[in-house]
Amino acid sequence: MITVGILGATGYTAYELIRILLRHPEVTITTLTSRQSGRPAVSSIHPSLAGRLDLPLEDLEPDQIAERCECVFSCLPHAASAAVVKTLADAGRRVVDFSADYRLHDAQVYADWYGEPHVDPDRLGQVPYGLPELFGDKIRGEQIVANPGCYPTSAILALAPLLQAGLIRTEGIILDSKSGVSGAGRTPKLATLYPECNESLTAYNVGKHRHTPEIDQVLGWFASGPIEVIFTPHLVPMDRGILTTAYALPAGNATEAELVAALRGFYSDQPFVQVVEGLPGTKHVSGTNFCHLAVRCVRGRVLVISCIDNLMKGASSAAVQNFNWMLGFPETTALLP
Amino acid sequence: MITVGILGATGYTAYELIRILLRHPEVTITTLTSRQSGRPAVSSIHPSLAGRLDLPLEDLEPDQIAERCECVFSCLPHAASAAVVKTLADAGRRVVDFSADYRLHDAQVYADWYGEPHVDPDRLGQVPYGLPELFGDKIRGEQIVANPGCYPTSAILALAPLLQAGLIRTEGIILDSKSGVSGAGRTPKLATLYPECNESLTAYNVGKHRHTPEIDQVLGWFASGPIEVIFTPHLVPMDRGILTTAYALPAGNATEAELVAALRGFYSDQPFVQVVEGLPGTKHVSGTNFCHLAVRCVRGRVLVISCIDNLMKGASSAAVQNFNWMLGFPETTALLP
Amino acid sequence: MITVGILGATGYTAYELIRILLRHPEVTITTLTSRQSGRPAVSSIHPSLAGRLDLPLEDLEPDQIAERCECVFSCLPHAASAAVVKTLADAGRRVVDFSADYRLHDAQVYADWYGEPHVDPDRLGQVPYGLPELFGDKIRGEQIVANPGCYPTSAILALAPLLQAGLIRTEGIILDSKSGVSGAGRTPKLATLYPECNESLTAYNVGKHRHTPEIDQVLGWFASGPIEVIFTPHLVPMDRGILTTAYALPAGNATEAELVAALRGFYSDQPFVQVVEGLPGTKHVSGTNFCHLAVRCVRGRVLVISCIDNLMKGASSAAVQNFNWMLGFPETTALLP
Amino acid sequence: MITVGILGATGYTAYELIRILLRHPEVTITTLTSRQSGRPAVSSIHPSLAGRLDLPLEDLEPDQIAERCECVFSCLPHAASAAVVKTLADAGRRVVDFSADYRLHDAQVYADWYGEPHVDPDRLGQVPYGLPELFGDKIRGEQIVANPGCYPTSAILALAPLLQAGLIRTEGIILDSKSGVSGAGRTPKLATLYPECNESLTAYNVGKHRHTPEIDQVLGWFASGPIEVIFTPHLVPMDRGILTTAYALPAGNATEAELVAALRGFYSDQPFVQVVEGLPGTKHVSGTNFCHLAVRCVRGRVLVISCIDNLMKGASSAAVQNFNWMLGFPETTALLP
Repeated sequence: MITVGILGATGYTAYELIRILLRHPEVTITTLTSRQSGRPAVSSIHPSLAGRLDLPLEDLEPDQIAERCECVFSCLPHAASAAVVKTLADAGRRVVDFSADYRLHDAQVYADWYGEPHVDPDRLGQVPYGLPELFGDKIRGEQIVANPGCYPTSAILALAPLLQAGLIRTEGIILDSKSGVSGAGRTPKLATLYPECNESLTAYNVGKHRHTPEIDQVLGWFASGPIEVIFTPHLVPMDRGILTTAYALPAGNATEAELVAALRGFYSDQPFVQVVEGLPGTKHVSGTNFCHLAVRCVRGRVLVISCIDNLMKGASSAAVQNFNWMLGFPETTALLP
Repeated sequence: MITVGILGATGYTAYELIRILLRHPEVTITTLTSRQSGRPAVSSIHPSLAGRLDLPLEDLEPDQIAERCECVFSCLPHAASAAVVKTLADAGRRVVDFSADYRLHDAQVYADWYGEPHVDPDRLGQVPYGLPELFGDKIRGEQIVANPGCYPTSAILALAPLLQAGLIRTEGIILDSKSGVSGAGRTPKLATLYPECNESLTAYNVGKHRHTPEIDQVLGWFASGPIEVIFTPHLVPMDRGILTTAYALPAGNATEAELVAALRGFYSDQPFVQVVEGLPGTKHVSGTNFCHLAVRCVRGRVLVISCIDNLMKGASSAAVQNFNWMLGFPETTALLP
Repeated sequence: MITVGILGATGYTAYELIRILLRHPEVTITTLTSRQSGRPAVSSIHPSLAGRLDLPLEDLEPDQIAERCECVFSCLPHAASAAVVKTLADAGRRVVDFSADYRLHDAQVYADWYGEPHVDPDRLGQVPYGLPELFGDKIRGEQIVANPGCYPTSAILALAPLLQAGLIRTEGIILDSKSGVSGAGRTPKLATLYPECNESLTAYNVGKHRHTPEIDQVLGWFASGPIEVIFTPHLVPMDRGILTTAYALPAGNATEAELVAALRGFYSDQPFVQVVEGLPGTKHVSGTNFCHLAVRCVRGRVLVISCIDNLMKGASSAAVQNFNWMLGFPETTALLP
Repeated sequence: MITVGILGATGYTAYELIRILLRHPEVTITTLTSRQSGRPAVSSIHPSLAGRLDLPLEDLEPDQIAERCECVFSCLPHAASAAVVKTLADAGRRVVDFSADYRLHDAQVYADWYGEPHVDPDRLGQVPYGLPELFGDKIRGEQIVANPGCYPTSAILALAPLLQAGLIRTEGIILDSKSGVSGAGRTPKLATLYPECNESLTAYNVGKHRHTPEIDQVLGWFASGPIEVIFTPHLVPMDRGILTTAYALPAGNATEAELVAALRGFYSDQPFVQVVEGLPGTKHVSGTNFCHLAVRCVRGRVLVISCIDNLMKGASSAAVQNFNWMLGFPETTALLP
């Protein structure tokens, strides 16, 4: 049994992570942290866990965490996360980092988009990007993995194979993404108050969302040249789910059927990516680690529609999938819903 | 034209009030207050008002307000409201008070439920309770009106006529009420964050909700003896609407048809109360000043089901209805949707 | 491995059942039935199953089903279900029946509420009522189990222990229940169209809901006399979840703490019932087989608030829990979320 | 007073139309039609109208309608609508046609997209397209107006001024549109059942939606050459509202500020179009005839985000705005919310 700790355990991704790990036959959760005082029972913060997990939330130092845990999942915010991950990694612990800290490989790009210098720049580029469908071989056995952003997961799974195969062009990619509200986190703010979001739809952070350089970087690895996507996130009145409508210019004369075949071929061994015939909906993947993809050619443009659950394949189930690869467990352990 | 001010203009009830008053042919909105600094444009707080109302939110003293407004609608919290209303009333201004401050006639009951002594106890009992369907004659021409609570409106309109007619008993009344989330206000808090409320249903403040003594008091005026209701509020994943399912013991042998006839007779001259044959839904009254009532007899118990829009008949349209009575305008002015 | 068939596999409860059974280590799903022609792939009806279950929906006769399955879960409507269950049972197959057909033990009560005579009256009273928390010993090893209704599950778990302990009275019980829309099934009808339900709340079938005699019957078994509840179902704009607010008259002077203790004692060995301190919400049990209960005493009345997921503890996970009892598997197999 | 009839009065757009017309000081609704038998009261179909409109739904012939109404609003489906409109127009009645029948000016394009020949081809091109912000002069005094589609309204208001000013290019326009469920109508079908839509997001009719040629045609009138948009509609779990994210290639070097200024200049006299600074949300225009537009330049691409209420500016309030232009009433009559 692997002893596991979860840092920043009060949010939505932490709850989903706990829920999944409780099913994992090789895991014992030993530690949950939060800056809340008074060591509240986790079930007082996540009432669904009543009778299922009897642990307090504790405000611990990194070395205390390292003592108790062989593997740590960090749900801390960026910068705060790298500060702890650094210590845990130096102490030889395994870490799955939910934050953006180890995703970008260029410290300057990080500083440009996150507004502060990176606290652990030497590790940048050494930590694999945790999309096992694309980088499984790099993740296997690793000590640290950078868990991808939710929007990037939906976009990269849709387009990386087509870029690699030279079927779409590198310029002119538009990603119109729509997300449920849980993606905005559990800290109360006006924009995510129920009567503000419900019965409304908005775009937000247009041209400024921090997932942009992450998408550029990873798609760039699969393309013949640098990528600069137009990425527009929208907030949808639902708890969870991301649907990305990706628009790309074709690079040749591939038909819709050939594009579908290329995606199917690429993902033929992947248990969690399904290239479907109908049009996918976020509900079809809700609560799962699946990604559903569909391709359509419209008036000379290639559309790939991609659905994931932002809290699962976009965060917590992806983290366990990465954990399984790091530790050598079967990839689907605890992940088939 | 009556010059009108709105105190505490950032919330949901204030927005609905503005929307209604913009249609009122006898009203000019001159003043909007809030403690926000910087005199933000109202349309920056309520984006729906872009191009429709060009006023700032200002942090004003009561005497400044009195200078600018003949009538003031106070959307301030309890206690804060009475402190201002007192000054405005002493200056001869008309006030519709959305807070609970002038609803309860007994200062001790107020202190017991609101946890502090009343700041203007001498006016208690002098200010009419603003349900024109029951107290229109007392509201006509008045200077101050206590706008009722949302839950009490739904409950009192359902039961007062049956109590007055002696058709139901005073003891054993159960009010199982369900409200949309806007009733909890616009201040961000965890309980009303979208992913907390959506896809969930909870009871809250069971046995402790401050609308309880208000319902007891007003129903008591129509009954042969004191009333102590069992009132259970629930939070429903929708923006607006209250449905109260009222359970009462019959006082005699009245049939369902006779109970319906009694309610219909009582409200025969009231434009905003409809006793319907089917079962009402909150959507049927959404955005309106209407209350829909239905009666069912089940296994010897009388059920009255009552639907209102908590922001409209439960707050802002009711306030304008009261304003119309106070000023002598036709009751339905600006209120037919 | 037990070979399993699911009858009427197109609906919401069937989907949840499939999802759970795919995780069950002792089960192979061999057969899915529906009256749809053309043997459509199950993933064309339930897109979430793409890549997870590759079976067609078939229109089969009972004897064909009996050939292929050791255990059958029937999600057919009442009357249609008993007609098939009869044949399957006669052929020695095990059955978990989701319909109401074997829940009521009195054929006359069945006929009164369901409007037609029972097709298999001799078995009535022989088939255990599938609430393992109350009737586990009767379910163990049985051939047929009557899976309970969703509302009855929420109500009976709340009140049966208090009735049995003589802590509440048999008369005057009011059950104000609220359910998500999935409870109304997957057949398109105006009342459950999105724009009809969304942003609305209604009561329905007041005094007429067919779960009424089921609640009366089972609570009656725990009471000192016959039970006639006032049961009012409401439709809430959410996918899933039932919250029942139960109002009962106390039978003695038990305090809130004593009532809580009685419930906790009764369920102390039950993994799926939690008596919580805070007020439960349907989201706390969403997607699980759990029931959360809370007790409050208000002005001399006993309130028990009960939350379940109508599709899970109210249907499909309960069915698997019953299956585990019937077959002797650990009760929680495949049911810890 | 103008006597008005509404054809096909059972749907959502008809309800909104009735609601608006009840406020219109120059209108008397005399006739409501539907193929339902038995002349049901309109309030039995639209419960919100209880006590507000006492008319039956009748199954009438065109000449009966012409006898009773000076102006007819047709909410009938395409083809069925033109058949009646033809007769009414020949009889000299005014008509606002909600269907697509008179929007497209080319009978062949109509036949290609609607799958049948047009029944009144001679009038095509004679009937103005009912967007008063663009075609007010052509609508004034007209006998028939083609009320625009909901998606086209959101898209055309966003882009027509920029095309006309030569600020964006004609090729490469992508319209990623998102709509609430009421846009799919009130006929029960699986795709719009509550538990199918809620908590889900899907694209639909990708590359096939019939609003495509309508957008092409009208934008083409403002462009230097033919337009072929990529239009992708999505279904969002909310009652009402359309948000279109329009992506266009700039035609020159105009800055974001210059694009905003161009839109503001174009709409400076229009009461119902607001070019806002923040990012618009559908809720900001819910229940109103307003369109909110915002412009952003992202990595060399021009984005215009456009919000309307699909049932209002996308249908029923637009129809009344057209009616006001046709009859010479002030444009905003009955339309300020």
